[in-house]
Amino acid sequence: MGKQVGGKTLRLTALRLEALDFRSVRCRSTSAPGTVRSMEDILTRVVVPLPTYETREKSPPPPESNSVEFMHFYRSLEKEEKSQLLATLSQDFGVDHKGVSELAGKLLDTQLRDLATILQVEDRLRYSLTPRYKQLLNHISRVEGGVKFLVDLRADLLEIISSKGSDSPHIRDLNGTLKGLLSEWFSVGLLRLERITWQSPCEILQKISQYEAVHPVRNWTDIKRRVGPYRRCYAFTHAAMPGEPLVVLHVALTEDISDNIQVRAVMKKLATLDLEEDVNKVNTAVFYSISSTQAGLQGVELGNVLIKRVVRELQSEFPHMSQFSSLSPIPGFSSWLQGLLSQHRKEGRMELLTDHEWREVADVTNTTPDTNALDALRKLISTGEWTRSERLVHVLEPALMRLCAWYLYGEKRRGYTLNPVANFHLQNGATMWRLNWHADTSPRGVANSCGIMVNYRYFLQETPSNSAAYMHNKVITVTEQVLGLVSQFQKNSKL
Amino acid sequence: MGKQVGGKTLRLTALRLEALDFRSVRCRSTSAPGTVRSMEDILTRVVVPLPTYETREKSPPPPESNSVEFMHFYRSLEKEEKSQLLATLSQDFGVDHKGVSELAGKLLDTQLRDLATILQVEDRLRYSLTPRYKQLLNHISRVEGGVKFLVDLRADLLEIISSKGSDSPHIRDLNGTLKGLLSEWFSVGLLRLERITWQSPCEILQKISQYEAVHPVRNWTDIKRRVGPYRRCYAFTHAAMPGEPLVVLHVALTEDISDNIQVRAVMKKLATLDLEEDVNKVNTAVFYSISSTQAGLQGVELGNVLIKRVVRELQSEFPHMSQFSSLSPIPGFSSWLQGLLSQHRKEGRMELLTDHEWREVADVTNTTPDTNALDALRKLISTGEWTRSERLVHVLEPALMRLCAWYLYGEKRRGYTLNPVANFHLQNGATMWRLNWHADTSPRGVANSCGIMVNYRYFLQETPSNSAAYMHNKVITVTEQVLGLVSQFQKNSKL
Amino acid sequence: MGKQVGGKTLRLTALRLEALDFRSVRCRSTSAPGTVRSMEDILTRVVVPLPTYETREKSPPPPESNSVEFMHFYRSLEKEEKSQLLATLSQDFGVDHKGVSELAGKLLDTQLRDLATILQVEDRLRYSLTPRYKQLLNHISRVEGGVKFLVDLRADLLEIISSKGSDSPHIRDLNGTLKGLLSEWFSVGLLRLERITWQSPCEILQKISQYEAVHPVRNWTDIKRRVGPYRRCYAFTHAAMPGEPLVVLHVALTEDISDNIQVRAVMKKLATLDLEEDVNKVNTAVFYSISSTQAGLQGVELGNVLIKRVVRELQSEFPHMSQFSSLSPIPGFSSWLQGLLSQHRKEGRMELLTDHEWREVADVTNTTPDTNALDALRKLISTGEWTRSERLVHVLEPALMRLCAWYLYGEKRRGYTLNPVANFHLQNGATMWRLNWHADTSPRGVANSCGIMVNYRYFLQETPSNSAAYMHNKVITVTEQVLGLVSQFQKNSKL
Amino acid sequence: MGKQVGGKTLRLTALRLEALDFRSVRCRSTSAPGTVRSMEDILTRVVVPLPTYETREKSPPPPESNSVEFMHFYRSLEKEEKSQLLATLSQDFGVDHKGVSELAGKLLDTQLRDLATILQVEDRLRYSLTPRYKQLLNHISRVEGGVKFLVDLRADLLEIISSKGSDSPHIRDLNGTLKGLLSEWFSVGLLRLERITWQSPCEILQKISQYEAVHPVRNWTDIKRRVGPYRRCYAFTHAAMPGEPLVVLHVALTEDISDNIQVRAVMKKLATLDLEEDVNKVNTAVFYSISSTQAGLQGVELGNVLIKRVVRELQSEFPHMSQFSSLSPIPGFSSWLQGLLSQHRKEGRMELLTDHEWREVADVTNTTPDTNALDALRKLISTGEWTRSERLVHVLEPALMRLCAWYLYGEKRRGYTLNPVANFHLQNGATMWRLNWHADTSPRGVANSCGIMVNYRYFLQETPSNSAAYMHNKVITVTEQVLGLVSQFQKNSKL
Repeated sequence: MGKQVGGKTLRLTALRLEALDFRSVRCRSTSAPGTVRSMEDILTRVVVPLPTYETREKSPPPPESNSVEFMHFYRSLEKEEKSQLLATLSQDFGVDHKGVSELAGKLLDTQLRDLATILQVEDRLRYSLTPRYKQLLNHISRVEGGVKFLVDLRADLLEIISSKGSDSPHIRDLNGTLKGLLSEWFSVGLLRLERITWQSPCEILQKISQYEAVHPVRNWTDIKRRVGPYRRCYAFTHAAMPGEPLVVLHVALTEDISDNIQVRAVMKKLATLDLEEDVNKVNTAVFYSISSTQAGLQGVELGNVLIKRVVRELQSEFPHMSQFSSLSPIPGFSSWLQGLLSQHRKEGRMELLTDHEWREVADVTNTTPDTNALDALRKLISTGEWTRSERLVHVLEPALMRLCAWYLYGEKRRGYTLNPVANFHLQNGATMWRLNWHADTSPRGVANSCGIMVNYRYFLQETPSNSAAYMHNKVITVTEQVLGLVSQFQKNSKL
Repeated sequence: MGKQVGGKTLRLTALRLEALDFRSVRCRSTSAPGTVRSMEDILTRVVVPLPTYETREKSPPPPESNSVEFMHFYRSLEKEEKSQLLATLSQDFGVDHKGVSELAGKLLDTQLRDLATILQVEDRLRYSLTPRYKQLLNHISRVEGGVKFLVDLRADLLEIISSKGSDSPHIRDLNGTLKGLLSEWFSVGLLRLERITWQSPCEILQKISQYEAVHPVRNWTDIKRRVGPYRRCYAFTHAAMPGEPLVVLHVALTEDISDNIQVRAVMKKLATLDLEEDVNKVNTAVFYSISSTQAGLQGVELGNVLIKRVVRELQSEFPHMSQFSSLSPIPGFSSWLQGLLSQHRKEGRMELLTDHEWREVADVTNTTPDTNALDALRKLISTGEWTRSERLVHVLEPALMRLCAWYLYGEKRRGYTLNPVANFHLQNGATMWRLNWHADTSPRGVANSCGIMVNYRYFLQETPSNSAAYMHNKVITVTEQVLGLVSQFQKNSKL
Repeated sequence: MGKQVGGKTLRLTALRLEALDFRSVRCRSTSAPGTVRSMEDILTRVVVPLPTYETREKSPPPPESNSVEFMHFYRSLEKEEKSQLLATLSQDFGVDHKGVSELAGKLLDTQLRDLATILQVEDRLRYSLTPRYKQLLNHISRVEGGVKFLVDLRADLLEIISSKGSDSPHIRDLNGTLKGLLSEWFSVGLLRLERITWQSPCEILQKISQYEAVHPVRNWTDIKRRVGPYRRCYAFTHAAMPGEPLVVLHVALTEDISDNIQVRAVMKKLATLDLEEDVNKVNTAVFYSISSTQAGLQGVELGNVLIKRVVRELQSEFPHMSQFSSLSPIPGFSSWLQGLLSQHRKEGRMELLTDHEWREVADVTNTTPDTNALDALRKLISTGEWTRSERLVHVLEPALMRLCAWYLYGEKRRGYTLNPVANFHLQNGATMWRLNWHADTSPRGVANSCGIMVNYRYFLQETPSNSAAYMHNKVITVTEQVLGLVSQFQKNSKL
Repeated sequence: MGKQVGGKTLRLTALRLEALDFRSVRCRSTSAPGTVRSMEDILTRVVVPLPTYETREKSPPPPESNSVEFMHFYRSLEKEEKSQLLATLSQDFGVDHKGVSELAGKLLDTQLRDLATILQVEDRLRYSLTPRYKQLLNHISRVEGGVKFLVDLRADLLEIISSKGSDSPHIRDLNGTLKGLLSEWFSVGLLRLERITWQSPCEILQKISQYEAVHPVRNWTDIKRRVGPYRRCYAFTHAAMPGEPLVVLHVALTEDISDNIQVRAVMKKLATLDLEEDVNKVNTAVFYSISSTQAGLQGVELGNVLIKRVVRELQSEFPHMSQFSSLSPIPGFSSWLQGLLSQHRKEGRMELLTDHEWREVADVTNTTPDTNALDALRKLISTGEWTRSERLVHVLEPALMRLCAWYLYGEKRRGYTLNPVANFHLQNGATMWRLNWHADTSPRGVANSCGIMVNYRYFLQETPSNSAAYMHNKVITVTEQVLGLVSQFQKNSKL
């Protein structure tokens, strides 16, 4: 078995790498020692040591074939092996701790000397803190397809970090280093805003269909509509990943900010594909979907920049446009509510609904207004059955609205709002503007958020200060409507 | 006076920056104290402190207007003031030395503890070594025109560093930080290779004409020829600086590597603009000019990458192309020679020429073959007069050729060859292939290098190893022809 | 009737004017008989008289609004009314017969005079033969969307001519005039060859899917495959009809001319969408589908020119490509065969199959080898049931092949081959090269042509002479294989 | 000698024409008989006979090599030979007069029969009036570069017609046929409006510089200015002649219609190349140069259409733009004036100037106010010396202005204004709006039109009616200013 692995390594070394197609050279061995050895062999060869501080500018880059070999090797691995490889890379090819330590000592020694010396030792220290693998990442980025490779590799890293118990600090370091590099390469000056239309290449439109997470695209007529009249679709692309939309924003052009009634309009009424736009009817931009397409770019903020650029673009196309708002889903509300109900059930608490509301629920469900009604309610909500009874809908509207308002406004994680969509828009400086009942009545909408949707509105003058207030002081900018619902919830819940 | 300056600052703060045109708000005051104060005011406002390590990912970017304000302010300054501003920026808004020192101490303390802690302290240390101004540079890069601004700012920095006695370590640090950022932004994956033709936008062709340093472009017919048949012109451009060629390579397509006779062919014979290329006559690519256009990208190696990309491009266009070589000028040879002659004059040494050669020089110049002849020779070379006498040309050819060979091969600076063009090609892995007598007989060519030119040839299989040998071990790959000339020089000079 | 018409006029008046651009020229008549009158009114206003011969170059064009009005009016009409309008236009706004007649007389009178006079009278006569409506057509072509309007109008004309008994000579004249104009506007020099890929605009790919007549496109994966590796898709477009493919050619790149076995390869085996092409495996171009998209361009030969241009394009991409052939369907064979069988049934003739073949058919169908078997055969063929019996397939193969060969080669209309696909390729100079049994076994293929397909092969050196032989002398260039089948048919049928 | 020619013909026949490069095969023989014979041989072969009326749709086009051969042959000829060839082509390969005559007779015979027959005979007659060479022209247009060839051939035809006494009616017929075809191919629907900027391909800008007739382009800075801020440059291009501007319009964007004072502004003040346009300062479009580039498109009206399209383009860019006017030169005024002065000199008439004016002229020139002064005036005007004397300038202003007004308004050819620029704008429907004294003081301006320029203004609502009034009734729309000057002239001249 060991031979096979050795054989593979040999083959690897012998092959002319330009022509190499690793797809057939799958690494199937499961015996850890052998694979690990072969991995280390490759890494040792491919991840060249950092030049000394003195020669750091005199060192020619290693041959491109190093990067290509690494990319092919990595792609040939099974998931588990990838994980192993990254562990080895991050652990054995990282920072030279001894060197760092020596320089740290030297820095302390020099504190009494002149500033020039301090600066120089600091610079050496900074250099010595560079992980050896950083160079490899840099070189890979220069190979054709290299940037995309690194984006995908980071997606693997993130999966490892989140899924595993193996919370290795080295892997975290590798992730941090790679994120830093990606942030440089995907900095705003290098992104290109593209408007996607029915004239755009099919390849792009197909990708946008596949990536669309918020409102899944059903067919080509559907995607045609989303780039048609009274709609805009924008994406950021990057020179190093041509033809690959990084983040996609769908906008509806309307006369007013869409609420529950106009939601359907947004989605269905404007179906006429050949309609010509009447500029006078366009006063508002409703961002109804924003999707990031690259898992590996997590934390590299693109979405907020895209929204800002699109706002500028729309203002120049429609000088009189005055309202900008999202119409957002509320993923997680239903499951949060189920959790809450379960907990109250356990604790025998009934204050989520008013007495009147419980009576009504009990009445409709032929139960008693106690834990029986609570059980019935849990079931109704998990099945979505409640939407079939007009009476229930009528009773539950105020309850679900105030619960939802609380979920969005009051439920926190490390001081920031728990709901990721809310968090995204609040970071961007939006205002939590209006909860809309009966806004997404699709099965998906009912299952996720009891049909409720929310507008995060962008008041352009205030977004910077809102953003800062939220980021620094965890203050959410919010309207009376939402606050009213929140205080109803609090009154009820004796919070 | 102070008031005026203060007034300006006030105005700055009050103005809506989008509309602001600083061109008319030139800062003309020369009184250092006031300006310095206003500078510090602006910097303090614009260069926001680094977030703490803990909040570094939670901090929204400062408003774009910060970057725009800094750019406008900087552009409004006189040269001296810019220098002052950069000094202040680099000194007062750099690294927090105290913080670094504390973390260094902490790191030493933790050396006995677990690896996870070490890694975390290292990461904090790394972060604390970030100069405060690095953030500003990053944010500027995201503003429209920001990258170009930073490239130009770095050109200013380099000028300050090279021109002044004021060899401030802080300015060097700022320069190092900026160079690091530019290297990321201008990494190969983000550059775009463009072939320039007569169909290219006028704007690009005009810029290429202006930037051409090796063989100045005289007029539009001249530039048309340089993008015409049997020529190729390639440039790297960058998404963040559209329409701006960064480095330009001119290639002549020939049947053999141009030497002295074909030089003229390269420059003049192929003048027929409407000639159609005969692919069968193209076997060789002669790189006859490579120009970097952005002073601020010094040290960000683009030229060598461009040559490699162009070689690939040419190979795919002409699959049978087999020879790649530069035909390079030798700037500095004549002035080096003059220096050598002066020194020998002082020291009364005569071994640069053989006895026979001195006699011939004396004979032609009506002098005696001693320091008189030496003086005469110095004058002849400084005026270029020697080219008018066939006898002198005949006598001096071997002498100048061996001197030039020594100049290119033997004269070193820190172990690397002194001549910058040679250094460039040797770093790229080229071979010092052939010195060509009578190769550039233009006044400029005679004045710079006594009409000699040199081919640095690229043997594609060997460039990586040549490059490494030169960079690491300072070994120059060289042909018999050049070595022969060098040893003649050494024999003569008793070296 | 009058009411209906009145209703329409009302509708016209009521229409939202954005769509309509009648700006000043509202159609206000409401009286019914009136529509005819209103038509004439409009035509009289819009179709301005020809200038006199003398002032023909001094006349400014009528205002664009004339053309726009006509276009809107025409589009607002029902089918029957369009027909009426075109009848009126062609009849009342055509040639001034009296004027022509006078000039004809004058020409005869001048036959004895000088040549200059004759030439001038001829020129006047030529001018007088211009129908008044020709000017209108010319002006419409200059309006935005005008050319497309005229192409569609000609489609209407062709439908009128073919469908109606009303074989009006005026309508034919109008059709001839319009065809002449379209031929000028769509002459080859003005067509643009475009290669369609997955990078082409979605709009184009959707249209190509819709227009595909030969092998209907099922879904977007299907169309993606047709523009993917080992395929080429080319279209002619025209500056005056942007985004509108006029004629589309689908090509498969193969190692040999596809016959029945490789048909499936062409259609299915190459399904791997991300396959990379291996140039060495490409020796042959198989044109497997050519579709005209504009009914109104009938008779304006585009398809043959497209094939020629594509051949040149492919030769420059694949210099070693040596075989060019269609793989064509045989629409109409089955229905022709059914007709033949019916006729033989009536006449009690049995010679279409040999005695042995009839016996086999009878045996399988439990009939007797007489008209009973013939009836059974007719049913088998009309239902496609025969393909389910291996024995029948075996028996019928030679019979169907020789019948099909005769259908393609022997069945004529005005001396040219009856089958339109054959006629197209023979006009282009192709050779009727090979009939392929079991070539298209889809239900459609079996229903149309008993699963048989045919290759029309293009021997590039011979296409001009083949084309001329066919066009002038009705001679079909054909291979031994096809001729052999034909003579078997003839022997059998005692023809 | 005859042999040589014969040899050439032989060679022509034998060569594979695709590869043929006639540039080296110049026809140098001067012996008329031989050349003529060879010409007829080639024409007979290349200009195939018209198909019969019956087979006209069944005839495959002649091989492309026919067209290519003709093009190469024609290009190889000297000017005189071209003329000969065109004479032969037009005379011997034109209309079949006998056939026409027979059909004319037949038409007269059929006048009593049914309409269908009449229509059919008319169609045959129409077809028989087609010159045989028309087919050749059609086929040439389909070859690559064919349309440009025909445009240039028409330029040759026009030169022959205008220069020679040989006013052959056949050449006129050929010219008419070709013009008809060009009019179809260059109809508006097929033209593409391009805005030319400094980003446009160098090739285009170089051509526009070369073609500029009104204000010659001096250098590249000059052309850069003409496509820079406060300027627009538009051109029509055509799909069949890519990269070739057909007609070019230069526009200045100003605050008011430029008169003599602002002329310089138009030409010089706006020199700052990097100026940014202030939309609020743009109210007026001044067309200061329109140039046709293709002599062979004479009579194919492109310029007027270009102006209309540009007006639409400008209105959409500057919705508030309200004034459109030319600022036009008056070529021919000075020479017309010289002619007038000569004639008056002969006839001894002195009424062109008032007595007072003559006295002043005499005074300044030291002559007597009689024919001596007249002679002096002639000389002053022919040399432009008058502009150096302030007194003369003052005296002559009213005289030259009223003479110029008369020249533009009163001097006619066949009822239309003599001055070609005036004629162009009046046909387009412009108003003769204002004469501007001291408007073009360049030597060229003084020499051509005594420094006077004129605005033809476009009132958009009135251009159609103005155009019709001028074209049909020869009525010039004119302002009070111009009329006033005209009547002063008339009063003075006793007209």
